[in-house]
Amino acid sequence: MPNISNRAIEMPQSPIRKLAPLANAAKERGVHVHHLNIGQPDLPSPPEAMVALKNVKRDTLEYSPSDGYKSYREKLCGYYAKYDINLDADDIIITTGGSEAVLFAFMSCLNPGDEIIVPEPAYANYMAFAISAGAKIRTISSSIEQGFSLPPVHAFEKLINERTRGILICNPNNPTGYLYTRKEMEQIRKMVKKYDLFLFSDEVYREFIYTGSPYISACHLKDIEQNVVLIDSVSKRYSECGIRVGALITKNKTVRDAVMKFCQARLSPPLIGQIVAEASLDASEEYMRNCYDEYVERRNCLIDGLNRIPGVYSPIPMGSFYTIARLPVEDSDDFCAWCLSDFEYEGETVMMAPASGFYTTPNEGKNQVRIAYVTAKEELQRALFILGKALEVYNNRLK
Amino acid sequence: MPNISNRAIEMPQSPIRKLAPLANAAKERGVHVHHLNIGQPDLPSPPEAMVALKNVKRDTLEYSPSDGYKSYREKLCGYYAKYDINLDADDIIITTGGSEAVLFAFMSCLNPGDEIIVPEPAYANYMAFAISAGAKIRTISSSIEQGFSLPPVHAFEKLINERTRGILICNPNNPTGYLYTRKEMEQIRKMVKKYDLFLFSDEVYREFIYTGSPYISACHLKDIEQNVVLIDSVSKRYSECGIRVGALITKNKTVRDAVMKFCQARLSPPLIGQIVAEASLDASEEYMRNCYDEYVERRNCLIDGLNRIPGVYSPIPMGSFYTIARLPVEDSDDFCAWCLSDFEYEGETVMMAPASGFYTTPNEGKNQVRIAYVTAKEELQRALFILGKALEVYNNRLK
Repeated sequence: MPNISNRAIEMPQSPIRKLAPLANAAKERGVHVHHLNIGQPDLPSPPEAMVALKNVKRDTLEYSPSDGYKSYREKLCGYYAKYDINLDADDIIITTGGSEAVLFAFMSCLNPGDEIIVPEPAYANYMAFAISAGAKIRTISSSIEQGFSLPPVHAFEKLINERTRGILICNPNNPTGYLYTRKEMEQIRKMVKKYDLFLFSDEVYREFIYTGSPYISACHLKDIEQNVVLIDSVSKRYSECGIRVGALITKNKTVRDAVMKFCQARLSPPLIGQIVAEASLDASEEYMRNCYDEYVERRNCLIDGLNRIPGVYSPIPMGSFYTIARLPVEDSDDFCAWCLSDFEYEGETVMMAPASGFYTTPNEGKNQVRIAYVTAKEELQRALFILGKALEVYNNRLK
Repeated sequence: MPNISNRAIEMPQSPIRKLAPLANAAKERGVHVHHLNIGQPDLPSPPEAMVALKNVKRDTLEYSPSDGYKSYREKLCGYYAKYDINLDADDIIITTGGSEAVLFAFMSCLNPGDEIIVPEPAYANYMAFAISAGAKIRTISSSIEQGFSLPPVHAFEKLINERTRGILICNPNNPTGYLYTRKEMEQIRKMVKKYDLFLFSDEVYREFIYTGSPYISACHLKDIEQNVVLIDSVSKRYSECGIRVGALITKNKTVRDAVMKFCQARLSPPLIGQIVAEASLDASEEYMRNCYDEYVERRNCLIDGLNRIPGVYSPIPMGSFYTIARLPVEDSDDFCAWCLSDFEYEGETVMMAPASGFYTTPNEGKNQVRIAYVTAKEELQRALFILGKALEVYNNRLK
């Protein structure tokens, strides 16, 4: 029997995946599991999307263009203009989710052995796509004490060498909820310019910014237009994770031409997803506002609740719908597994993502978890209560 | 401005893509272009698919499982059983089109520098996915004179070395329409067994076999169950290229676990596509028969018509909806470009795919083109008439 590839062996298995069998076993025992681990928005997709789906008029469900429908790309320009991002339709390549945009960006820009620098904690799948491209992610830890702000420039510069090809940021951030400030974005801009790096910027959470702070897109940065590759997706902003529609955006034509070769090889992004995504651009302000308000309330409820549990600390996330919290435990992998395998309170328990999956530096984030607020407030409150009980029992267990 | 990757430079640009601007220019001049170059079925998708699309009942268009919906995978087992392919739902991983199945198969099974052997002419995008995985495709030419039958075993053995990790076949074949015989499949089986290779078998055209010859799937071959990776897709069988639903199927659990890591990284295959594909399994026998009958008639019309043009020869394809034809020209790239840029007859011309894009051996297939029969018979007949005229003018041009 032939062997699998080394890269397949190297591919990370997310900590949540490892917990999944424990969660299933808990459910089979009749335990109700509060899912604080999921990045799947529970809010409804826009009604405009559902109407478009019902009205798909086609005899044949044919390939769409490899870069996506022009009508959709043109309409997207209007969407981005509202954020002061000025694009031509040709700057936009529609991808199969933001995931494919990251993969194709890496495939097109990075040679095997090339390095990119990513502040951590970071979205675990960046690592998977880097491994797919044979590239190496070098991480710099940001600290919970500093609210996960950008690590200092000298920490980046310490890692920059002749194999360094780019910096990757996620802004607003998954998993921390941090939003980079104008000053931080300017620091990034200067490094990108000085060392002629790519700036891969994943900005899929731009709708979900909860403070008065401005959203500074990588596309707003002067003089590095040719270096910026924006990663986008409709998954989060319209609660449309399943339609698999994202985008790779760059003013750099050489990069776009390279990306298009990968796009042509996979023929086309999803046809129906694009129809739905295009219609979603007509989502009412009221719909967008309701989603926003709901997340604002949940965020307040979650962060207040977390910080009220003895020994727990969460910074206040400025955006997205996650937070990284510090728990009064030594090993959150163990604690999260224990919650599913050994604990229940009135037939309930909680599932969280251990933060270890978001760090590559060994032992970083050992006492942290990622918590998503994509469930209703009442559910969040109950989950927090159960989490408090779990911590109590867990820490009294060996006494 | 940072450079793009070497693999992006290496990625092939299909000859059809190179012709696209010429075709657009012709259309702008008001010339009607008969598209014999396309692999996009024109027949309607099954009515069951369209009904399912109208009836999607979901508030949130959520992620589906990374390996696809279990209900769909279970129902697929019944579909494969009709072809004597006996599967468990767990043997099947739903992918974003057959394209992703090929990419993930290569990513999971091949290390950079590893080699796979592919009879050519071959589907050009295999090369693109191999480059993405850093692997090398070694080709063996099959000849039009032999009707594109399997090259002899010694030709394979000449290429097998310590880096050889697999054989890839497409059966029935795109671009040749060839269907491997039981004897040929047995030859492949023996090589796979003897050298412990992967057998990647792309069988997306199994519905379209026009002779009494049996369809021998790689999954039918004894004793190499752990070596076989089947590539599948609903694109062709239900005229559903746009929904991007395929499958990677293997009894090899180690390979499946490896593939799942890539699947988890990209989160999920298209949700709505899976709903449509699952419903399509209920397509009536009448629908399937009508599609089949239509292709049978077009095949006869096309092959008869081609062989009636002086100097043109096409073997009779046993399956799929393509044929590779030999033209009385020296350079089909030049001829195909000329048809679009310099020729018209009564305001019409033809677009074909030069066969050079399906070969990697230099100068192989220089006088061949791939022609698809995914347009109505009347259209095919007219296109053949125009092709005849074009060949006449082209060959008299320099006299």
